[in-house]
Amino acid sequence: MDMLWSGWGDPAAATPLPDTVTGLLRDLLGVEPRGAGPVALEDIAVPPSPLDAEAHRALLAAVGGHDEHVRTDAGTRVRHTRGKSTPDLLRIRAGEVDDVPAAVVLPAGHDEVLAVLRACAAHGLAVVPFGGGTSVVGGLAPVRRGTFVALDLRRMDGLLAVDPVSRTATLQAGLRAPRAEALLAEHGFTLGHFPQSYEWATIGGFAATRSSGQASAGYGRFDDMVLGLTLATPEGTVGTGRAPRSAAGPDLRQLLLGSEGAFGVITSVTVRVRPVPPTRRYEGWRFPSFRQGADALRRLAQDGPRPTVLRLSDETETLVGLAQPDAIGSAARQDAGCLAVVGFEGAAEDTARRRDRAAAALRDAGGTPLGEEPGRRWAHGRYSAPYLRDALLDAGAFAETLETAAFWSRLPELYASVREALTATLTAAGTPPLVMCHISHVYENGASLYFTVVSAQGDDPVAHWTRAKHAANDAILAAGGTISHHHGVGADHRDWYVREAGPLAVDALRAVKRRLDPAGVLNPGVLLPAD
Amino acid sequence: MDMLWSGWGDPAAATPLPDTVTGLLRDLLGVEPRGAGPVALEDIAVPPSPLDAEAHRALLAAVGGHDEHVRTDAGTRVRHTRGKSTPDLLRIRAGEVDDVPAAVVLPAGHDEVLAVLRACAAHGLAVVPFGGGTSVVGGLAPVRRGTFVALDLRRMDGLLAVDPVSRTATLQAGLRAPRAEALLAEHGFTLGHFPQSYEWATIGGFAATRSSGQASAGYGRFDDMVLGLTLATPEGTVGTGRAPRSAAGPDLRQLLLGSEGAFGVITSVTVRVRPVPPTRRYEGWRFPSFRQGADALRRLAQDGPRPTVLRLSDETETLVGLAQPDAIGSAARQDAGCLAVVGFEGAAEDTARRRDRAAAALRDAGGTPLGEEPGRRWAHGRYSAPYLRDALLDAGAFAETLETAAFWSRLPELYASVREALTATLTAAGTPPLVMCHISHVYENGASLYFTVVSAQGDDPVAHWTRAKHAANDAILAAGGTISHHHGVGADHRDWYVREAGPLAVDALRAVKRRLDPAGVLNPGVLLPAD
Repeated sequence: MDMLWSGWGDPAAATPLPDTVTGLLRDLLGVEPRGAGPVALEDIAVPPSPLDAEAHRALLAAVGGHDEHVRTDAGTRVRHTRGKSTPDLLRIRAGEVDDVPAAVVLPAGHDEVLAVLRACAAHGLAVVPFGGGTSVVGGLAPVRRGTFVALDLRRMDGLLAVDPVSRTATLQAGLRAPRAEALLAEHGFTLGHFPQSYEWATIGGFAATRSSGQASAGYGRFDDMVLGLTLATPEGTVGTGRAPRSAAGPDLRQLLLGSEGAFGVITSVTVRVRPVPPTRRYEGWRFPSFRQGADALRRLAQDGPRPTVLRLSDETETLVGLAQPDAIGSAARQDAGCLAVVGFEGAAEDTARRRDRAAAALRDAGGTPLGEEPGRRWAHGRYSAPYLRDALLDAGAFAETLETAAFWSRLPELYASVREALTATLTAAGTPPLVMCHISHVYENGASLYFTVVSAQGDDPVAHWTRAKHAANDAILAAGGTISHHHGVGADHRDWYVREAGPLAVDALRAVKRRLDPAGVLNPGVLLPAD
Repeated sequence: MDMLWSGWGDPAAATPLPDTVTGLLRDLLGVEPRGAGPVALEDIAVPPSPLDAEAHRALLAAVGGHDEHVRTDAGTRVRHTRGKSTPDLLRIRAGEVDDVPAAVVLPAGHDEVLAVLRACAAHGLAVVPFGGGTSVVGGLAPVRRGTFVALDLRRMDGLLAVDPVSRTATLQAGLRAPRAEALLAEHGFTLGHFPQSYEWATIGGFAATRSSGQASAGYGRFDDMVLGLTLATPEGTVGTGRAPRSAAGPDLRQLLLGSEGAFGVITSVTVRVRPVPPTRRYEGWRFPSFRQGADALRRLAQDGPRPTVLRLSDETETLVGLAQPDAIGSAARQDAGCLAVVGFEGAAEDTARRRDRAAAALRDAGGTPLGEEPGRRWAHGRYSAPYLRDALLDAGAFAETLETAAFWSRLPELYASVREALTATLTAAGTPPLVMCHISHVYENGASLYFTVVSAQGDDPVAHWTRAKHAANDAILAAGGTISHHHGVGADHRDWYVREAGPLAVDALRAVKRRLDPAGVLNPGVLLPAD
């Protein structure tokens, strides 16, 4: 099924806000209900497709001549307009479709993708690779200098190979994560990649954006899992990955991972897989402060045992209960401290042993065990936050997230300065926010920070947020963080990415792009400045 | 001190071959003693430096005007001629110095490196970055189209920063590994990187070549340890690494790691460090066959517990005793099977626990414990194999190594076909070899194979070896391996690297090089084909 065009996921799975939350929003943030929900899809004035007949014929020829694989109807085009950031949603809910593609092309495999890219280069059509459509950083909104098409990979959804001895699998890029897990489970394997976008996002999108999942402490980031990639470009194919690791030159996989459609279209990915764990155990722990909890997480990340899931909410997020979306506002939590979720997966005996050793370390670091109930609630609600955002927007609130990462010693300053930037900017705009944060990914040498912001919408929420987001981006760079730990660069972070990487490095990447995409048709303005 | 110009290491550490080995070489391989050792250094006819006065002045100005930092004397130039492959040694021992640099430049820091590179670009001088000089793949022998200089990083040997909270350290590129370990030990840390070149190689060299050490099972490869890099290029500086991991675009660190001086000169590296382990325990295990031993290693790599050191010799290497160079030929080993070295480092309790669990798994996989003595002997002799090679050359034998890696399911075919290629080619040349192999680096999804070849020298050992090596390279690619797991590409593997990576990917890397090094002065012909 298709994702809801005006919001997240499956409309049947949406749930209204509990009255307690509506009350909280009103009392705390001055949120007033707004009458208008999304406009009706059929009321949106979608301009006719600007695709000319010759280009249309070329695209059709590239995908085997079937009309249903080059779609120009308004509904399909609207469903491929931008991604799922809050500004994206606010604009699409208002019927703004200035980013609508001219057509949606659905190739059946690598060779058809090559043919589509050649056709696009020949006809001057920009092309936006489209997997699950879940980008929250403007990864699907190219610089519009002419006609562009969306290249939807949904027909490329096969498990191409499994090697049970090496524990590898080759997956087509358009496979959605739940289907990939189901196909791997038939062989007894799991990928172990569970980002919040899990139910909708695709294998190719994970690779193109360097996704990181909620079990990254145990399974690693998606880029850790990738052993090989196949990339289709207007100039031909790049294939990588003959061994787990190599000293044969730069790691080309790591040049293609995170390339966000600017270098080509990832058509298949060979990944590390692991046996499906027989045991999963998630627990809650309470820490007196975010600082103390962060120290405890660092201790596990550096000295072990390493949990599979490791997450710590700050005081505000714990108070609101965001780690357990089903339970928000359900109880007074005045002395809640900071909630950590600590999860272990694996063989029963090994899981128990690691759990016991971790529990000793966490107690030693000032933690109080809360048992399995908070862990179960976290696991149950782990994919529901995007639905909650839709409900908040319906209620007249603004809600958005952003994230970064840094070395451990820089985290306290990074945390303080991003909070301050968001709070000051939105307060000055007349919509004082609630800023919450959690650590969701840990490494020996550092961790990520994931911020959630909720406020009243105010008169012009997109403009307010743009200012706050830019201030947060500046604060991230000033405090030594990276502009994104797992959402990617897209168009929204591009200018800060250029500052982070530096002009010479960005120029080197542009040189790569020019070689692979001389006509500059691939996702122009996403990741790298458009030529 | 300087490394022996005509061989390996410290001449005082050299030891002659035991008589048992000389006898083995004669009986098994027909090796006859040769009279001639290396020519005398003073007898080598080193051509006068072709560096013109203007270029000399420019280089001098780049390094602060001190004569001793731009050296053109014959001795220094010979010591910077090529690396330490067996063909390199055979040629230098014979007084062949056609690859001698015009000068050796010794900058004091990053800014001086930048100035040297600008001077080289301005004056059309090719430049070869030179760390420990231990390359065995022609990494120090550029395509000679004109004058070239060696850029020796030895003056850049400082520990620039330690962050004990994040467990990171920033090291200058010219630091030799033992000195780096000593500086880190003052802070209670270790890098844990112990390749066979450890006593001479440098931090910058490890990064430029994607080095992997003998404790890679526990500490990871050098490229796993690198969190940030600073690169000096003729066009300016590239700096990377604000967080352990990021979703902000391609991983630039992984583009610079393995760039072998073709993109620029790595001037400092920020690495992950770990507490010095209080306990180290290395043990020997015997397996009935290489196949069974490899399955046991795979089991530990995939299901744990992961040892710190994990190495398995095949039947021939075990028979010869190469894993314990001090003991070669010391005992009849007719039923030796295959020797594995399994080592654990860490806190005493944790080491014991992991060791016990690993022992149970190894027994279950058909292994027989041999106690700590074989482990101690391996650890004692772990850096002595290059000295042994010098003694073999002195004795009239030929000895060389090569290595590769692949996914587990491809290893048996890779092993068989590389052995066959080496054996067939050298036998046809009239010098039938002894081919030995070990697995020295394991991953969840695959492992490395490291081959050692010993034969008589024959009439023209360099030509014989070149043919055998090319046949092995072809066999590696045909069997699905990578052309190098940890020695790198250099000039020797370049043509096979181009086949492995494919023309489009190589072109993309050449585009990067052209942006960073438009004059093409950086290590021309190393890694990438010269323009």
